[in-house]
Amino acid sequence: MKKLLFTPGPLSTSQSTKEVMLQDVGSRDFEFIEAVKEIRTTLLKIGHVSKEAGYECVIIQGSGTFGIESVISSAISRNDTLLVLVNGAYGERIVKMARIHQINLIVERFEEDELVTVARTEEVLSNHPEITHVAVIHSETTTGLINPIEAIGGVVKAHQKTFIIDAMSSFGGIETDVAATAADYLISSSNKCIEGVPGFAFALCKRTELEKCNGQARSLTLDLYDQWRGLELNGQFRFTPPTLSLMAFRQALHELEEEGGVPAREARYRQNKAVLDKGMADLGIKSYLKPEIQGPIISSFLYPTHPNFNFEQFYQQLNERNLVIYPGKLSKADAFRIGTIGQIFPEDVQTLVDAIGSILQALE
Amino acid sequence: MKKLLFTPGPLSTSQSTKEVMLQDVGSRDFEFIEAVKEIRTTLLKIGHVSKEAGYECVIIQGSGTFGIESVISSAISRNDTLLVLVNGAYGERIVKMARIHQINLIVERFEEDELVTVARTEEVLSNHPEITHVAVIHSETTTGLINPIEAIGGVVKAHQKTFIIDAMSSFGGIETDVAATAADYLISSSNKCIEGVPGFAFALCKRTELEKCNGQARSLTLDLYDQWRGLELNGQFRFTPPTLSLMAFRQALHELEEEGGVPAREARYRQNKAVLDKGMADLGIKSYLKPEIQGPIISSFLYPTHPNFNFEQFYQQLNERNLVIYPGKLSKADAFRIGTIGQIFPEDVQTLVDAIGSILQALE
Repeated sequence: MKKLLFTPGPLSTSQSTKEVMLQDVGSRDFEFIEAVKEIRTTLLKIGHVSKEAGYECVIIQGSGTFGIESVISSAISRNDTLLVLVNGAYGERIVKMARIHQINLIVERFEEDELVTVARTEEVLSNHPEITHVAVIHSETTTGLINPIEAIGGVVKAHQKTFIIDAMSSFGGIETDVAATAADYLISSSNKCIEGVPGFAFALCKRTELEKCNGQARSLTLDLYDQWRGLELNGQFRFTPPTLSLMAFRQALHELEEEGGVPAREARYRQNKAVLDKGMADLGIKSYLKPEIQGPIISSFLYPTHPNFNFEQFYQQLNERNLVIYPGKLSKADAFRIGTIGQIFPEDVQTLVDAIGSILQALE
Repeated sequence: MKKLLFTPGPLSTSQSTKEVMLQDVGSRDFEFIEAVKEIRTTLLKIGHVSKEAGYECVIIQGSGTFGIESVISSAISRNDTLLVLVNGAYGERIVKMARIHQINLIVERFEEDELVTVARTEEVLSNHPEITHVAVIHSETTTGLINPIEAIGGVVKAHQKTFIIDAMSSFGGIETDVAATAADYLISSSNKCIEGVPGFAFALCKRTELEKCNGQARSLTLDLYDQWRGLELNGQFRFTPPTLSLMAFRQALHELEEEGGVPAREARYRQNKAVLDKGMADLGIKSYLKPEIQGPIISSFLYPTHPNFNFEQFYQQLNERNLVIYPGKLSKADAFRIGTIGQIFPEDVQTLVDAIGSILQALE
């Protein structure tokens, strides 16, 4: 009955995380306010920063994209110019957002199977002194590649620009020192590597940058500055928060700590990925990315060349075995994706690989 | 251990509704897509409308306010003019939103203890032919009054304007025939009278109006039209949905049906309210509103005149007994609020009243 989600999130969460949601809680309740406070402090700690070091954690209701749009539409004024470094669908999503908000925009595109490079970032920044903000994706869920955010942050800071990192599918699963990346804003969500349930996004923000957002937002609900002020004022949300998702998330944070923190979690995800890679290689299924740029979060695999292969059927057959994979999102190749994050262990990945093997064998 | 929430939501939900969340589900899973489809159809049915009759249900991640802002920022073009009929904080919130989106705006304010009137609505509409859209709150959670939306809808339609109803705290708890109110948009949320957990809002929309929103939204995530097209295209959300909140909401809808639908639920809420009114009158605590304009959802009570009364202490003492009430939001009087919605029954209200009585007695 229990499904295993090999997806980039919503993903498989622990039973104990979900069980927290069996208790109703009021959104203005002392107990809830304490939980929110603990969550905000712990998220900063996971990013190796703190209020004392000048950082703030702001929680935004909705999905991860709501968090990204909150930052993009609050942090960048009408006189600013945003450079987006794109090598996948999530970079394109930031471009789309910026266009809707009529933000001055420069887009630097890389191939989907290539990393964003420091050299080209440096070149664009040198040619366009009008750029004030730079945005990049850490783990591009389109393919699973990991952009070199620390190196990019170095060049962004050498040019004294504000740096925005979409760390949606990496934060909590790949060790990230926010200060070392030079990120002024780093955004992730409840239902990724912290292994909570969906319901909200969060942004780790440099306070001096956050303060500049005052009065700059382009909507009420996605106003990052007002959301922060509200949380600081009385620990409450301006608008109804997803109370139970937050209570579950606190439990997920405790369990991350018990597992040994981000290093231990990253090690487990890398083990998952190793089992997947060996299994898929044995089955002759090709990875889309070169191994040196592939991260441990999610992987794209090209469709098997067997003439009878049909993705919908394949997906359905795995689903009947309670194994849920993810469709592809590549612009130029037919692929499917397999996530190796969440409450998924090497033996679960082996179960998946075995199931894939037996389904493909039956195609013969 | 179990808390009873006498709040306007997040509120007390049934154990069986929460238990649904013990099962992980993928956001692109067949089972989840079916649940979303059932939810959208059932919500239209509760509003006595249907796709066949020209209505659509759009679900928006976030809180109720996200749903309101999605409608306000998608439905009203730069050439349109919005009239907001205000008699409380939630009307003011729509005004604030409209200002942020630089929407042409006319605000007609009523006292917080008075209903919006047809006569003054008619007068404003006659004096301002430039008005294209009219917005009003059904159950003003500030006080608990119920505005006469059918009568207001009559005059709005006589002037051929688009009608937007914020039915956040009433939908599912007060019988509402969307067509009879002449609403083009009616918005509510998951954590109100349907008795689900927080995580999303929904809008029941007249399709011909919804179609006009194409390309008009002022953000990516709150684009009502694109959200609708996404749900229609493949039954999926554009951005990660609060999967478990939605699965729980489907269960809550089943339980609403089992209870006897909205008429039975409304009858229970009115029983709750009757027990509360009698109890509070016996304790000498005064209602803020005249009974004839008071609804069964939430009630404002003036602070007892006892010199030792302190709201924070009072709240805390009730909380220690696992009874959670709500602070006031009146602009001109000190009051607290008690909600009578959610999985709350007349005997629970009696427990609350008895607790209030004993706490106040101890003040002597």
